[in-house]
Amino acid sequence: MSPRLQPALHAVWWDSDAVGYIDQRRLPLELIRARASGVDEVVSAIASLAVRGAPAIGIFAAYGVALARAQHTDDDGFRGAAARIRSARPTAVNLAWAVDRMMAAPEGAHLDVAREIHAEQRAIDRAIALTGAELLPAEGSIITHCNTGPLATGAGGTALGIVIEAHRAGKRLHLYVDETRPLLQGARLTMVEAERAGIPATLIVDGAAAATIERKGIACAIVGADRIATNGDTANKIGTLGLALAAAHHRIPFYVAAPRSTIDFALRSGEEIPIEERSAGEVRAFGGVPTAPTQSDVYNPAFDVTPGRLIAGIVTEYGVVRPPYTDGLPDLASRPSGAFALRASA
Amino acid sequence: MSPRLQPALHAVWWDSDAVGYIDQRRLPLELIRARASGVDEVVSAIASLAVRGAPAIGIFAAYGVALARAQHTDDDGFRGAAARIRSARPTAVNLAWAVDRMMAAPEGAHLDVAREIHAEQRAIDRAIALTGAELLPAEGSIITHCNTGPLATGAGGTALGIVIEAHRAGKRLHLYVDETRPLLQGARLTMVEAERAGIPATLIVDGAAAATIERKGIACAIVGADRIATNGDTANKIGTLGLALAAAHHRIPFYVAAPRSTIDFALRSGEEIPIEERSAGEVRAFGGVPTAPTQSDVYNPAFDVTPGRLIAGIVTEYGVVRPPYTDGLPDLASRPSGAFALRASA
Repeated sequence: MSPRLQPALHAVWWDSDAVGYIDQRRLPLELIRARASGVDEVVSAIASLAVRGAPAIGIFAAYGVALARAQHTDDDGFRGAAARIRSARPTAVNLAWAVDRMMAAPEGAHLDVAREIHAEQRAIDRAIALTGAELLPAEGSIITHCNTGPLATGAGGTALGIVIEAHRAGKRLHLYVDETRPLLQGARLTMVEAERAGIPATLIVDGAAAATIERKGIACAIVGADRIATNGDTANKIGTLGLALAAAHHRIPFYVAAPRSTIDFALRSGEEIPIEERSAGEVRAFGGVPTAPTQSDVYNPAFDVTPGRLIAGIVTEYGVVRPPYTDGLPDLASRPSGAFALRASA
Repeated sequence: MSPRLQPALHAVWWDSDAVGYIDQRRLPLELIRARASGVDEVVSAIASLAVRGAPAIGIFAAYGVALARAQHTDDDGFRGAAARIRSARPTAVNLAWAVDRMMAAPEGAHLDVAREIHAEQRAIDRAIALTGAELLPAEGSIITHCNTGPLATGAGGTALGIVIEAHRAGKRLHLYVDETRPLLQGARLTMVEAERAGIPATLIVDGAAAATIERKGIACAIVGADRIATNGDTANKIGTLGLALAAAHHRIPFYVAAPRSTIDFALRSGEEIPIEERSAGEVRAFGGVPTAPTQSDVYNPAFDVTPGRLIAGIVTEYGVVRPPYTDGLPDLASRPSGAFALRASA
């Protein structure tokens, strides 16, 4: 244990007869720890984005179902409550997956299964962090985009988990953080995570990434992923492709960190990845302050696709996959996804 | 004259016994036309950024000196007033240049010289617009960054002036506009200019440029410039390099439009261009709403440098300069800068 260690940032936790969480809507202004003591509050916390990040939502929902089981003596009431949690956000894959797994739990074992889901995430994130930390320089500057730390996964984080682990292990790193418009996850969340972890960090606007890599001598870029095709093409938060192009221009490695569950073995390339378009309001205003004419037409894709050829390595809980990805990624199809954690740490 | 023509957007104008201007601080919420009827108001409008854009400031200051001459019967009072206008912003080159030229005007000719400065800008912008419009497709989508229209130059604009001219000439264009963090000149100003000109325009976050070029089939990118070295390396608003890299990745031409006065013949490459760093507050908040932890370290370069090799052509009032720029750009050194306008239109 190093004296530089800071208290960890936990996004969600079991809190006796409630589910604890950090209300991420209040960040970066306040670090509010809240309790959902009933199903209504669990659903509301998910729907309102107080808890966000796909893995964190899954863990939170699992605890929520355990809470519902404790509070409902009748099975119909319990099943209704679980269904409400499951549909709190329509497109969150981890949410449905976690609730379904909870509903298959033996009677009396719901809290244990929720804790198991949480423990698995910690083990996956830990394996990614340990493996990825070796890719970072012993000393130097790195750059990231969006939010991939403890707040996003409910455990150690993926790309930022790697940076935190490398810092803990004694590497002397300086982190540059893209603010990540439109929703500013880099500014609002990653800067908070870096501060809590004691990592020196500097915020930049997304458009400054290329200039920053050049003028600050950045050694490498590292980001997370929302979906990865078997040729390495990676969908991630809008702006990731711009960072990858800047990294390629300045000839520094660009790494992706993501659990095996992010790889979509059905996809041969990024062209098959559907790209969600989000509302114009995210771009036309911030915090209620208009940034553009109120009727402006807006194109607001949530993700972009970075070609696998721009990616130097993909860090998973099973190790670093290197190009050509068409060889290395399909090999992971036979490895377990969710069950990794307990087996690896058993 | 086409029925699609909209009334032009004038940033500054002579208004009988005052200087008229659009208060750009109020955009995009309100299009406020204001009058500076005394030197105090002229100085205040410049210092507060109500009038911004280097050429627009120069023209506004010239009219301001004409106003001061009309209101001061004593020479000392007049010279003091002019000096106050000249120092309203410390680093604006056009401001000092315009005031100095006004002070050299013959007695009784001050308003004429101010109108001459304004007319020169219109002629320069007009020449750039006519030349550049031929580079744009007869039909298609284009993308731009920051603000380069009438609000920036006080005349027709540079890069956006080209788009407006091509639209007037009947080309069927759709304009995509980078919002341009941190100060959002794209969202706040360019979107207003496009709307006034009747050009269909769509706003995107800066990080979405690469995805937009790909998914919207953008035909070319066109931007302005703050300073150009003789090898074509171009300093422009932060984020320009990212757009240039995205254009190169998708193999579409990336054009720069700027008057000859923007070329710094003393510079052999962009490495010699000093990059202004601006305050952290621009990145940490927007419109009073914090976007990051209040003590966050910030790196906020105002400009980046796009290598000349990424630029397909530089549009000036003397025509389009093509690579290799080390041949074409130094040739312009012998051409007049400010005086172009009147000679060309005489």
